[in-house]
Amino acid sequence: MVDPAAPTSAPLDSGDITTAGPVPLDDALPQHVERVLAGYLDRRRTDVLGIDPAVAQAADALAGFVLGGGKRLRPTFAWWGWRGAGGDPQDEHAQGVLSAIAALELVQACALVHDDLMDASSTRRGRPTVHVEFARVHASNGWSGPPARFGAAVAILVGDLAQVWADDMFHSAALPEGAHARAGEPWRAMRTEVLSGQYLDVLAQASGDAAEATALKIDRFKTAAYTVERPLHLGAAIAGAEAPVLGAYRRYGADIGVAFQLRDDLLGVFGDPRVTGKPAGDDLREGKRTLLVAAALQRAEQRGDRAAHEVITRALGDPGLAGEELDRVRAALSELGAVQVVEQRIAALTGSALDALDAAPVLEPARARLFELAERATRRAW
Amino acid sequence: MVDPAAPTSAPLDSGDITTAGPVPLDDALPQHVERVLAGYLDRRRTDVLGIDPAVAQAADALAGFVLGGGKRLRPTFAWWGWRGAGGDPQDEHAQGVLSAIAALELVQACALVHDDLMDASSTRRGRPTVHVEFARVHASNGWSGPPARFGAAVAILVGDLAQVWADDMFHSAALPEGAHARAGEPWRAMRTEVLSGQYLDVLAQASGDAAEATALKIDRFKTAAYTVERPLHLGAAIAGAEAPVLGAYRRYGADIGVAFQLRDDLLGVFGDPRVTGKPAGDDLREGKRTLLVAAALQRAEQRGDRAAHEVITRALGDPGLAGEELDRVRAALSELGAVQVVEQRIAALTGSALDALDAAPVLEPARARLFELAERATRRAW
Repeated sequence: MVDPAAPTSAPLDSGDITTAGPVPLDDALPQHVERVLAGYLDRRRTDVLGIDPAVAQAADALAGFVLGGGKRLRPTFAWWGWRGAGGDPQDEHAQGVLSAIAALELVQACALVHDDLMDASSTRRGRPTVHVEFARVHASNGWSGPPARFGAAVAILVGDLAQVWADDMFHSAALPEGAHARAGEPWRAMRTEVLSGQYLDVLAQASGDAAEATALKIDRFKTAAYTVERPLHLGAAIAGAEAPVLGAYRRYGADIGVAFQLRDDLLGVFGDPRVTGKPAGDDLREGKRTLLVAAALQRAEQRGDRAAHEVITRALGDPGLAGEELDRVRAALSELGAVQVVEQRIAALTGSALDALDAAPVLEPARARLFELAERATRRAW
Repeated sequence: MVDPAAPTSAPLDSGDITTAGPVPLDDALPQHVERVLAGYLDRRRTDVLGIDPAVAQAADALAGFVLGGGKRLRPTFAWWGWRGAGGDPQDEHAQGVLSAIAALELVQACALVHDDLMDASSTRRGRPTVHVEFARVHASNGWSGPPARFGAAVAILVGDLAQVWADDMFHSAALPEGAHARAGEPWRAMRTEVLSGQYLDVLAQASGDAAEATALKIDRFKTAAYTVERPLHLGAAIAGAEAPVLGAYRRYGADIGVAFQLRDDLLGVFGDPRVTGKPAGDDLREGKRTLLVAAALQRAEQRGDRAAHEVITRALGDPGLAGEELDRVRAALSELGAVQVVEQRIAALTGSALDALDAAPVLEPARARLFELAERATRRAW
């Protein structure tokens, strides 16, 4: 069996935690999430190694991707959702809860690997995307057929593997009696919602749908439900939360999630690449129909400002957009008041989210952490 | 929100069964599988309709694909696996078992939709593949960007949706106490095995790996484990089967599954397209490294028959292969004895499978049906 050169593979840095003694889960959640992910992926690697060493290379590519970076936002919201609804880190099931919510990172790996392929993105977190990396392996081995087609096939399969393992990890987590049944609802809803949001996004980009309502709906399902609302719901359901907490989480999650995406949209155009880690203007070059763009185009039409309208529409989907042309788009977005529209929307959403959280019987320290997370998600410069 | 022209959508023909009175599950399994699939997909359609009518179109594309054809082989093996281990169609959980095993058809939908994209296949069951159909929708609407890229994105997402809904359907099926925990092992193993087999297949085609052992390993994981062995294992696990039955099922499944694939390989080159429904020679044109091809190349090398070797290697991956050139490949495969090698292997595998089944305490009528299925899978002309 063929043994291709090993693609990107990250070290499993779980040692830091186990050798330094137990760091409380609350204080080092991302590291604990990475530890259980590394352990799970290592066990699944053993499974596929038994099939063929070549498959272990695909598992390594997935592990490298999952462990190579990410803010662990979704497990973080799920954890605080659980804690705020009475989940206790001293409980015998805390490690099981950690496994169940770490599985969110595998759902995310599938979404990103498939998204990168659909968007034909060449880098992610400063490294080649999966389809680009395997196209390179193909080319450097001088294999037959087009390298890009091989890279695409591997990215599809690696993403599928991530999705399948996400489900396996969630369903095999050692949760308390009844928790899987309760958590099934948000788990099912979340995965369908994010795929629905991605589909609407692909459709809106293709059809040039520039409505603000479309942009907000995509933000609602592709980002908010998937990143904040359902992770909180998942954690709460595991803890057996009552309706007032669930309702507050869902309001908070939907609003903070959309506000998070709107901040992302602003940073994508106006952010400092040295801070965000992403080249400014990517969303514009990809032709993404963000609320920022939708609001600007609508205002340009209302004012009859054809020049501004054209500056923006010409930029959308132009892979060469940069320099002065990008500056002109930025100026148009500001002058048309679109930046202000988006900032106001972020402020309003953050306000309603915090009101909902404030009114609900969410336990400390989760309550304070969720206030903090709302702040960070909506005011960040990264 | 954009409302694209509805892609292929099949009628939900469950009426035949419900209006004609209850047909015993044993006697009309494919129709019952289609009935529960149609019901499940209809409920999930309602979920995504609540997100946006455009997403319902994607769900319709999936439903059209799933309900538009297929032999329902995997649920059939799972059903008889369950029946042979004591599962009773009069039991209150029989409908739940039907749902759990019908979910195999959604795993298969993901595999086929993604496979068609990876292989750049344009038709499946006489209809356009998902990526081709959505590229057509894109082009006919005059949308922006390349139609093929849009079609690929939709096929990735529709396949992902099928995978996610497969898991949801399996995990939410109303099974007896403890059955989900027992069935979790084959469910998990099967999905990882089929992705591993697909990965090895993609790798072998790219690298030109012509070893017989590689071809057999791909058959083992991409086809046998996924089509026969694990479905039988799944049904048996739901029924709570003991080791002798499980062991016999797995032996039978692995052997009949590989024999089934070997028959498929022969039919793909020598079959009558009017009976198989597929153009002869597709595997050769796609460059698939089947055991048939591997055995032929090895024999050509052993004999020093460079002419025969070249006829075959030139044909592999040649999209224009047809007519006399295809006839020459057929002649070479026969003359080199490769057809005989494959026929002998099919006979040996079928023999060992039936021996295993014969020796195990598998209950009637499942025992007789599994003998029949072995016969049909390995001797068929379709």
